[in-house]
Amino acid sequence: MDFFDVVTTTRAIRRYRPDPIPEDDLARIFHAATRAPSGSNSQPFHFLVLRDGPRAVEARQLLGSAFRSAWSAKRADDGYDSGSGADPTSRKSRMAASMQHFVDHIHEAPIIVLALLRHRHAGHFTEGASVYPACQNLLLAARALGYGGVITMWHQPVAAQLVELLEIPPDVSLAATIPLGRPIGHHGPVRRRPLASLISEDTYPHPAPWATDP
Amino acid sequence: MDFFDVVTTTRAIRRYRPDPIPEDDLARIFHAATRAPSGSNSQPFHFLVLRDGPRAVEARQLLGSAFRSAWSAKRADDGYDSGSGADPTSRKSRMAASMQHFVDHIHEAPIIVLALLRHRHAGHFTEGASVYPACQNLLLAARALGYGGVITMWHQPVAAQLVELLEIPPDVSLAATIPLGRPIGHHGPVRRRPLASLISEDTYPHPAPWATDP
Repeated sequence: MDFFDVVTTTRAIRRYRPDPIPEDDLARIFHAATRAPSGSNSQPFHFLVLRDGPRAVEARQLLGSAFRSAWSAKRADDGYDSGSGADPTSRKSRMAASMQHFVDHIHEAPIIVLALLRHRHAGHFTEGASVYPACQNLLLAARALGYGGVITMWHQPVAAQLVELLEIPPDVSLAATIPLGRPIGHHGPVRRRPLASLISEDTYPHPAPWATDP
Repeated sequence: MDFFDVVTTTRAIRRYRPDPIPEDDLARIFHAATRAPSGSNSQPFHFLVLRDGPRAVEARQLLGSAFRSAWSAKRADDGYDSGSGADPTSRKSRMAASMQHFVDHIHEAPIIVLALLRHRHAGHFTEGASVYPACQNLLLAARALGYGGVITMWHQPVAAQLVELLEIPPDVSLAATIPLGRPIGHHGPVRRRPLASLISEDTYPHPAPWATDP
């Protein structure tokens, strides 16, 4: 696929067909992921892949319960069932239904990737520059091969259990959970704010005259 | 360009031709950047572009001095001039010469992008998931159009001065400085560790049998 077609159509995918991902495709996806930059090219990122191994099966159960409780809390806190959420045809209701399906089936995703980061600077947010570029490469490469996924943080309630179960060392943190698979249904648009609201020139938030959506 | 050609050949570029970047290319690069995912699709990232505006000229001078002092400290701390660094043909010496050129000319880069992040969670490293995917999209899109750049953190010594000069609000942080331009000289290989050392399956660091470089 052409680069700009990939980068402008990659969106969060939360419903997956059950088909396993061929290993040649896994190799291409993770090769692309690991070409990403990191601080001083030190590559402190690592990807732990959960398929059907014995620990993977246990980890999937832990993730399923964590995702369901995280979504349940967000559903209530963000009022997904009130206002326009009461109308099942509203965008809010459809989003809620999609999220409910996601958390009810997350444990069945063809693969679940745990993105890991070996720490050097005690968790400052700029450390993310050494792992999230690789996560983005992963999602783009998946898209280029017809797969989809999403970066989530909903492993956080069971992070300690996952660390123990999966033998993750103490100086390595969970940076993201990324399920991957072939999308069910149509792919849908990428919804983002207009370019003009996200770019400034010279001072903040002085508009850049050239920052218009192509 | 084909997606996989872009993603496997994007590398840090630190020497730029002086040619300005046409505004159509800027729009395409930043459109691609801003299609990236972020937590709850909230898009807390923002890009502040420095070209030749009055504040940009001042900011470039600040960045130049910060980059030169940061590199000077790293050059000494990491022993770039000792060991094989004493041999001007060694890889270490060539790296040092390239970095010296970079910091001596950073203020002249055709554009310098400051990646910004509006904070929600007080600086935890996972917040980086809402800005560094966009930075990676930016670098890949630049590569696809024949440009190159690098994610750096060397703005940090002058972060407070930049915030004041560029009128960056108090809840917005500098996440990265990314100079961009057409590369001088040949593009060079992407040096990364083998895939097998960066991927595990089932437990950490259990090897994934399919994780071999393509």
